[in-house]
Amino acid sequence: MKKMATVLIVLTLSTGFLGVAYAQFAKPEDAIQYRQSVMFLIGQHFSRMFAMVKGQIPYDKMAFEQNAALVDTLATLPWEAFMVPGTDKGKTGLKSSAFKEKEKFMQDANKMEAETARLAETAQTGNFDAIKNQIGETAKSCKSCHDDFRK
Amino acid sequence: MKKMATVLIVLTLSTGFLGVAYAQFAKPEDAIQYRQSVMFLIGQHFSRMFAMVKGQIPYDKMAFEQNAALVDTLATLPWEAFMVPGTDKGKTGLKSSAFKEKEKFMQDANKMEAETARLAETAQTGNFDAIKNQIGETAKSCKSCHDDFRK
Repeated sequence: MKKMATVLIVLTLSTGFLGVAYAQFAKPEDAIQYRQSVMFLIGQHFSRMFAMVKGQIPYDKMAFEQNAALVDTLATLPWEAFMVPGTDKGKTGLKSSAFKEKEKFMQDANKMEAETARLAETAQTGNFDAIKNQIGETAKSCKSCHDDFRK
Repeated sequence: MKKMATVLIVLTLSTGFLGVAYAQFAKPEDAIQYRQSVMFLIGQHFSRMFAMVKGQIPYDKMAFEQNAALVDTLATLPWEAFMVPGTDKGKTGLKSSAFKEKEKFMQDANKMEAETARLAETAQTGNFDAIKNQIGETAKSCKSCHDDFRK
């Protein structure tokens, strides 16, 4: 119940924030480049964590924590840029349905934000099994939104 | 003297960090896209602060603080990506001299990091004149490195 209240507060704040979001970008192309920049960085830092979880590079608690904290920060940024009208055209992977289903889009976005926050917390424990599980949950939340709204 | 010691420690840590930096990117193009993504985001959030300082939008202490804190975080990220061999070729504005003058490059980078950290601190005070002055100092540190190492 508390969680639901939090989700609702986050949704309300996000929606309020989105109200002024359009003014944040000088032109629609900037909004596209902004969100693509954020997503690229998230992808890069996610890969570094995945490499540890998969054993491709040694697990380093501090490096993992730093990556998780950064992704947690980055995960709060791109959503306003997705809501700028007209940015489903041009050099973008955004489906037009994102504008028709704004609520669903923001639910997906908030789910991903919640999972990255949980990943950042879990990273601090150094519990490798829990980390492995939580990075899986986070990746699922990424995929879910991509499935819904990426061309 | 204490400041000089800090700079030296930062330089040493950064250099140590750069030692493993090449492994962080799957291919040189990723390093280029990584640093361009970071720089684009820094530019966007800087613009939002500048707009307040110039009076184009109303000064909002919390929004300014958030932008300054984010730029402070982002400012720590791109340097390793600039040091990846071969990334002065292709779709990049990086001068080849960055590789020949690594020390100078990292001095410029550390100066910019220090100024953004100071901007984030100043933002918390809400002292508009101090903020105005410090955003100017920070912008100077950006320009200085661009003058030295951007084509």
